[in-house]
Amino acid sequence: METRAAVAFQAGKPLSVESVTVDGPREGEVLVEIKATGVCHTDAFTLSGEDPEGMFPAILGHEGAGVVVDVGPGVKSLKPGDHVIPLYTPECRECEYCLNPKTNLCQSIRSTQGQGLMPDGSSRFSINGEPVLHYMGCSTFSNHTVLPEIALAKIRSDAPFDKVCYIGCGVTTGIGAVINTAKVEIGSNVVVFGLGGIGLNVIQGARLAGANMIVGVDINPDKKALAERYGMTHFVNPLEVEGDLVPYLVDLTGGGADYSFECIGRTDTMRQALECAHKGWGESIIIGVAGAGQEISTRPFQLVTGRSWRGTAFGGARGRTDVPKIVDWYMDGKIEIDSMITHTMPLDEINTAFDLMHEGKSIRSVVTFD
Amino acid sequence: METRAAVAFQAGKPLSVESVTVDGPREGEVLVEIKATGVCHTDAFTLSGEDPEGMFPAILGHEGAGVVVDVGPGVKSLKPGDHVIPLYTPECRECEYCLNPKTNLCQSIRSTQGQGLMPDGSSRFSINGEPVLHYMGCSTFSNHTVLPEIALAKIRSDAPFDKVCYIGCGVTTGIGAVINTAKVEIGSNVVVFGLGGIGLNVIQGARLAGANMIVGVDINPDKKALAERYGMTHFVNPLEVEGDLVPYLVDLTGGGADYSFECIGRTDTMRQALECAHKGWGESIIIGVAGAGQEISTRPFQLVTGRSWRGTAFGGARGRTDVPKIVDWYMDGKIEIDSMITHTMPLDEINTAFDLMHEGKSIRSVVTFD
Repeated sequence: METRAAVAFQAGKPLSVESVTVDGPREGEVLVEIKATGVCHTDAFTLSGEDPEGMFPAILGHEGAGVVVDVGPGVKSLKPGDHVIPLYTPECRECEYCLNPKTNLCQSIRSTQGQGLMPDGSSRFSINGEPVLHYMGCSTFSNHTVLPEIALAKIRSDAPFDKVCYIGCGVTTGIGAVINTAKVEIGSNVVVFGLGGIGLNVIQGARLAGANMIVGVDINPDKKALAERYGMTHFVNPLEVEGDLVPYLVDLTGGGADYSFECIGRTDTMRQALECAHKGWGESIIIGVAGAGQEISTRPFQLVTGRSWRGTAFGGARGRTDVPKIVDWYMDGKIEIDSMITHTMPLDEINTAFDLMHEGKSIRSVVTFD
Repeated sequence: METRAAVAFQAGKPLSVESVTVDGPREGEVLVEIKATGVCHTDAFTLSGEDPEGMFPAILGHEGAGVVVDVGPGVKSLKPGDHVIPLYTPECRECEYCLNPKTNLCQSIRSTQGQGLMPDGSSRFSINGEPVLHYMGCSTFSNHTVLPEIALAKIRSDAPFDKVCYIGCGVTTGIGAVINTAKVEIGSNVVVFGLGGIGLNVIQGARLAGANMIVGVDINPDKKALAERYGMTHFVNPLEVEGDLVPYLVDLTGGGADYSFECIGRTDTMRQALECAHKGWGESIIIGVAGAGQEISTRPFQLVTGRSWRGTAFGGARGRTDVPKIVDWYMDGKIEIDSMITHTMPLDEINTAFDLMHEGKSIRSVVTFD
């Protein structure tokens, strides 16, 4: 079939909306009509050319929501008409990783996904017979896309696509880091570096977990009001702190953060996040993605005296199991999403979403397909 | 009273055995006759002058065992004749740290201990009226020493001093790192960097915990036989590995270590220990003490893909609670100590213990007082 998609032909260039041929689903695969997709920093990172694993031409996008159109042979858990969220971290429930309760990093289709291909080693996308690559196993910048059954979370049919698409990445990453990875306890003091889309979701995750202090750290004071709406109790602007930030945060939290989260992707703030964690038991969770080749450093004394340095991907969530629950939380009013989606636009204006992101004017832009 | 002690008058010089005046125990304090003391790398580190917190003149030693001689006012849990092991990490059972089950780093006397003083800010040691400093709150290189009640573990009276003194540091640090900090599960694959006294105790801790593979890494092949005696299943000499050590260890363990332990104190092996941990869930525990100012580094991707970087001090043990249990394990034959104590000597020969350590000829030397 033919569909419309925003294609990334080469690094550093705007996306180009094209007519793309989509082959039907093969064994274990599902054809999905994408109804809405968020535009995430990771898409921009790959498009910029800085992502060493980026490949072109490709159809980017990994934060979508849509409806099943067709299923290939052997697909048992989904049928046409089901509402779904694509998962860039699948959940096969059979591999060594899925069977280990300590991780969510299903490896069953890792190598082909990394190559921009379906598990059988081929692409379902082409233009004039020339293959176009998949991206993060999702390619939600296409109105129609094909995914493995194990990479789709089935969600309730009354959830609005243009809001819950954000659960496909940002919401789950932030809230999941708090709940699944850190396992923040009631009464904990939490410090969050970076009040963008991920940081706001860490904040509402911490509120959901019953945290005591929720300290937000950002050099942009315009972030304060929205972060407070999501549960931030204290705002710290490093540009306004006299002296070093780390002792300031340790003092503010009465000894250090029980849990700190780095949601920026800078190695210097990753270090600050670790070092502001409480001696004896503080844990620091890296969520942000640093540039290629960059390294984090600290004195080992920081760890020997009881701090832990950890990381999380997709918020430690097992998508098919956890994403439908987070959709329920949204529909039940336990978490908020709407006010984080600052811009909505049609596919033809998708490059505007990247511009707004780079200008710092959006929290999240969502592209809708009509 | 007068006693005999090995005194460190200045950095870089041998210890000098002297007659030292010991004041009696004050409120909450206990006078202990040390019967035996191990000589640990930490003593050598301080004596060398490389320890930025080292102060002189001081009586070093922190790995002892002895008998209570006298108690000061208010001491309730100990009486003359009790057998004890001094604790450089005390356990007051009242501070914020003791009341948090995530840490063993009791802070109640931290600042005075760091200054080489008793909790009231004074020293009990002097020579010709000139004060001599305590060390790590223990000063077990003195035949008689004074400690706070909260820094003494009461042990059974049938345990041999010249063996269980090692539980005061090395044994507990190694076994505790496995049991208390990492909480190694049955069937785990473990990699241990450095087969000195700490590494051997990590190995026997891993055996005690029911580990599957216990891989020892050391550039000295002479360590192999003894490590196997303590439970090592695979020996890796980095000098004999073709190519990089990390992928070799990942391959050997079928994907990486569930738990790795750095028992050397080198920042490069700390990085290797982290990076040989299993994607998704591997934890790396730093035990070794790095030189002043040195830093550890890695790519944050290592953490984001599920590895955790942690550390441990005194094996995460709460001394008054845990040390008596480890003494029981030794007496019951669950753990072995005797063959790790390669040399025993009188106080007058204590400098030989440092020589043997620097020459790599000893696992542990023990000084006995007669």
